[in-house]
Amino acid sequence: MAKVNDDLVKERNKCTFDIKELIHVIDGGEEYTRERKNVENLVLSIDGLKDDVPEEYLSHKERYENSVRKASILYKFFIDYQKKNPKSLERTGPSHIFKVQHGVIKDISPFMLHFGMFLPTVYSQASAEQQEQWLNHKPMMIGTYAQTELGHGTFIRGLETTATYDPLTEEFVLNSPTLTSYKWWPGGLAQTANHCIVLAQLYIKDKCYGIHPFLVQIRDFETHIPLPGIKVGEIGPKQGFQTANNGFLGFDKVRIPRQNMLNKNSQVLKDGTYVKAKSDKLTYGTMVMVRVYILSDVAYELARAATIAVRYAAVRHQSQPKPGQPEPQIIDYVTQQHKLFIAISTSHAFRVVGRWLWKTYTNVIADIGKGNMDSLPELHALSCCLKAVCSYDAARCVEHCRMACGGHGYMISSYLPILYGIVTATVTYEGEYTVVLLQTARYLMKSYKQALQGKPLMPTVAYLGQILNNQKWENTPEGVIDGFKAVAAGKTKAAFDVLESHIIGGKEFEDAWNLASVQLTYASEAHARVVLCEMFWKETQRISSTVSRNLASVLLQVAELYLVFWVLEKRGDMLMYTNICKEDVMRLQQRYEELLALIRPNAVGLVDAFDVRDEILRSTLGAYDGRVYERLMEEAMKSPLNKEPVNQSFHQYLKPLIHSRL
Amino acid sequence: MAKVNDDLVKERNKCTFDIKELIHVIDGGEEYTRERKNVENLVLSIDGLKDDVPEEYLSHKERYENSVRKASILYKFFIDYQKKNPKSLERTGPSHIFKVQHGVIKDISPFMLHFGMFLPTVYSQASAEQQEQWLNHKPMMIGTYAQTELGHGTFIRGLETTATYDPLTEEFVLNSPTLTSYKWWPGGLAQTANHCIVLAQLYIKDKCYGIHPFLVQIRDFETHIPLPGIKVGEIGPKQGFQTANNGFLGFDKVRIPRQNMLNKNSQVLKDGTYVKAKSDKLTYGTMVMVRVYILSDVAYELARAATIAVRYAAVRHQSQPKPGQPEPQIIDYVTQQHKLFIAISTSHAFRVVGRWLWKTYTNVIADIGKGNMDSLPELHALSCCLKAVCSYDAARCVEHCRMACGGHGYMISSYLPILYGIVTATVTYEGEYTVVLLQTARYLMKSYKQALQGKPLMPTVAYLGQILNNQKWENTPEGVIDGFKAVAAGKTKAAFDVLESHIIGGKEFEDAWNLASVQLTYASEAHARVVLCEMFWKETQRISSTVSRNLASVLLQVAELYLVFWVLEKRGDMLMYTNICKEDVMRLQQRYEELLALIRPNAVGLVDAFDVRDEILRSTLGAYDGRVYERLMEEAMKSPLNKEPVNQSFHQYLKPLIHSRL
Repeated sequence: MAKVNDDLVKERNKCTFDIKELIHVIDGGEEYTRERKNVENLVLSIDGLKDDVPEEYLSHKERYENSVRKASILYKFFIDYQKKNPKSLERTGPSHIFKVQHGVIKDISPFMLHFGMFLPTVYSQASAEQQEQWLNHKPMMIGTYAQTELGHGTFIRGLETTATYDPLTEEFVLNSPTLTSYKWWPGGLAQTANHCIVLAQLYIKDKCYGIHPFLVQIRDFETHIPLPGIKVGEIGPKQGFQTANNGFLGFDKVRIPRQNMLNKNSQVLKDGTYVKAKSDKLTYGTMVMVRVYILSDVAYELARAATIAVRYAAVRHQSQPKPGQPEPQIIDYVTQQHKLFIAISTSHAFRVVGRWLWKTYTNVIADIGKGNMDSLPELHALSCCLKAVCSYDAARCVEHCRMACGGHGYMISSYLPILYGIVTATVTYEGEYTVVLLQTARYLMKSYKQALQGKPLMPTVAYLGQILNNQKWENTPEGVIDGFKAVAAGKTKAAFDVLESHIIGGKEFEDAWNLASVQLTYASEAHARVVLCEMFWKETQRISSTVSRNLASVLLQVAELYLVFWVLEKRGDMLMYTNICKEDVMRLQQRYEELLALIRPNAVGLVDAFDVRDEILRSTLGAYDGRVYERLMEEAMKSPLNKEPVNQSFHQYLKPLIHSRL
Repeated sequence: MAKVNDDLVKERNKCTFDIKELIHVIDGGEEYTRERKNVENLVLSIDGLKDDVPEEYLSHKERYENSVRKASILYKFFIDYQKKNPKSLERTGPSHIFKVQHGVIKDISPFMLHFGMFLPTVYSQASAEQQEQWLNHKPMMIGTYAQTELGHGTFIRGLETTATYDPLTEEFVLNSPTLTSYKWWPGGLAQTANHCIVLAQLYIKDKCYGIHPFLVQIRDFETHIPLPGIKVGEIGPKQGFQTANNGFLGFDKVRIPRQNMLNKNSQVLKDGTYVKAKSDKLTYGTMVMVRVYILSDVAYELARAATIAVRYAAVRHQSQPKPGQPEPQIIDYVTQQHKLFIAISTSHAFRVVGRWLWKTYTNVIADIGKGNMDSLPELHALSCCLKAVCSYDAARCVEHCRMACGGHGYMISSYLPILYGIVTATVTYEGEYTVVLLQTARYLMKSYKQALQGKPLMPTVAYLGQILNNQKWENTPEGVIDGFKAVAAGKTKAAFDVLESHIIGGKEFEDAWNLASVQLTYASEAHARVVLCEMFWKETQRISSTVSRNLASVLLQVAELYLVFWVLEKRGDMLMYTNICKEDVMRLQQRYEELLALIRPNAVGLVDAFDVRDEILRSTLGAYDGRVYERLMEEAMKSPLNKEPVNQSFHQYLKPLIHSRL
């Protein structure tokens, strides 16, 4: 093993808490850490999963082929592992155990939607009989989930693909009537999947029954050739997700058996009778679940970004503020701490709030099972604004981590550009940022109206019914949380008033809504800040009471930094809607800088505790041993352009140019 | 020619001003428009510059080879054009005439640094004799500029490469003593350039004279094989700049003639006598110039981003707020206008302020020629903070434009990811964001101290000497500009006080500086906002008085939007440092939304007036005819993966997997 960089050794010696203890907290318990490490060891020792030439040098096509190769090996491993450890992978909920796949495929696996959307949809929306048949099918189905169309995204009711029931043959006829009705985006759809869940408008005897899910075979099991009437292919390169194999899909009157409509909820009988689902809210569940998962996912990706940028900042030296003295580690510049430590805090915040939201979700789902849907709208509103704010903040944090690494952060070998591609996609997919913020805003408007009418409110919006803007300001975490509540209540009221004034002015509700929409998104974002700050702080206090004193004090610093960072970011709102004064703001700025200094000696320890193995981190700048410059050069030397002293293009193009008589 | 999308036709009919008139304003005069269009027509009709397979499908190596091929053709064209039109390309200053190269190379040309740094450095730092010899050399030199090293960026004094004078042979010996001393990053260095300006520590008789520039031949003219002692290669793929051919370079005691030190300023005589430059500030010029150019460059790239996103928003329809009515164009959503119109305004702001800064620069350079260096520190401070703020804001605007295009903005074929790669790089190169902000902060601290001593201040910082925070708030453009001055003065004072308090507390100056540095960057950013708002508004007023009434009113709306957007963004600062009250802020929010509504009918006209040809825009989403969905599909069909019904990887990997007995 290579020598570890001296600066990192010193940093690790400085750490005031037990890193292992924090690793267990982050994994959710020692047994989870053990299992994660076990899977990592097994996967990362499989032959044939390492690339001689890094993926990014390959052509788009070669890169796809290489990722299918590795994804197939990984797939076999996980099925096999599950057989041998039947209890192991059964646990649901956010976990880092599958993140080991980043150690195999640098970007995104072409099987991502098979596991992430196809299987969950079959579990949640197919009948027991369908599940039995499809999940155990030999040969195996590789599936994806096709909802979005070329011309239709967020507005699901506007989808154009039709599934028309033909009672004579007991079949649905799937059709893409226009170019804009082509399915567009599903991962793995292009060249990988042989099956697809297709969302289409159900027509029976000329009557439209709205969007329903259908299982459609798109490629032959033996030859993989697209079945008759199926037009399928890939949509081309993207900002990230290069190996996700996103595809398009069109139907020219493709017939599928009646049994292929997923019929756990609604059904179509032989004669064409439509049997309605008990509730149209039942399909909400999966959508909410995916959004809840996004919090934990971006928390993990942010942990990777912070690990890279903090370790690099400890290794990198720059400038000479004092003549004759050595160049300081850049992590000692306060401006650098300002860029990086919030990334550590934010990762913790999103993980902690993500777990809380997961618990809330499982409770609500359990209630629904008992027929009680009272908490579903609140959960939906929570999952919308948190998905929006966490994805956006995470993308911003990753970019700030990258920029904090200077030019080297711009190298693919730093991995930060790939991370950004992965994280920024979450701002758009599974509910576009602004659209989902406005969904939460609807809930806030409704709740605020109830508050005005003196009706009781659900717990997470109860503060809307309280008078908060006459409270004395307190420069404490609790005071800050109250401040965020006053801001969210103030912005909710402001948006409500604008909405009302437009309606009184004679606008139709939806026009008034549009005119108020910028301020409605502000209210929704402010609500998310309340939840993030309050839940992160409360959960951190709870966790801190269960760990050693040294760790507890670090965790509380990390959480307080998050609160103070955000109250400073939002000081305009605080000055508008609370009784904070200029001097309070200046004292908070001072406290913020104190917290940076307190966290400084533990910064490397904190990112070590994210416990991301080098193979999964994939960064020349962030490896555990800090051999930054050696790795940058080693990676560069893998370039095929560096394998020959002169590129052929010299003889073809450059030589004639430089010898020409111009 | 294909039919233009109906929505775009309607939008263009709505436009209230003469688009041609605005095109001339943007180009800086009708004759510039004519010349630009002429060059575009010539370049875009050259055979062999169009790719059958889009660049992004190629392997990294193929992509380089293809870009060298096209860059060589382009090079010949421009030399030839210049001969035929000797006056045409002589004009200096920001211009869009060379942007046509984006119509040839999608990303960045491997010759970028030949034109952008090599030639300008030779012009500014080589003697007349050297220029004569090098610029007319046959065979031709293809050059680049090697300053940054693997372990050293911003801190130029820390560079490790040495150039040791040997009086016996009248040569300099170039050496790279460590891995961290390898040159790293120069564009074109890897496989393209045969010469290089190398920045190295000059040693004569064991004494170090600091950093000096040397011309070094790195590859043979005939064979292109690296010369003895030269280790050169490419650094690998990056977030963007994929075809820039960035390279590394190491020297193993490479000897070059004494005449190869660029000696317009300093010289080394035969016997090793060092002749010092008249002023060490003379090399400032080029660095400042490059930063000034960045403003105009990002203004142009932002114009491209706004064009794509605004046209797409006019073509795209989504949701159905009112039952039974068609889905609205997404540009009619106020949240969408909020995302996009600021990009239009910001492009105008940066172009206008960029031109003003260019004039300032040429005046200062003229003064320096007369021996007057009084204005250089002010110019340097201006160029630093404006470079930082404009590059950062532009990157943010481009990303918001991309996200405003939903999933399709994430496609490379939208071009927005490539634009982001180009623009975000400017935040780091030619002076990292935080580092250059802190350079301006030094000037602000010095100026503020002078103000306290009652000394006169330079024009752009004169406001630091005025008492601004007791002024009555006015909700007018002039009032807003005064507000920004009060904020910048307030933040400068706050940073100064923190700095002082640490020094009084016993800290050394540079430690105090570090402790105050977060607030110092805030002061610097605030200063940039003053300049941007004031100069944009004043210049817009001046220009408006020279154009038709209709256009004038639109230009003033665009500029006012910029001011109101930023006062709202910075309302926290305004509430801290001015007498603005909550009601003023709410009225400004209202005014902001009024301005969005005023600009709405002209939005497509405004981006049409950026006059970026489809070939240069390179976007499926932004083309003039609005055939968004057709183009997305046409581009996708160019994927090599779509050229065959079944990819070979099925037989190798997927088939065994789906038929396995797992």
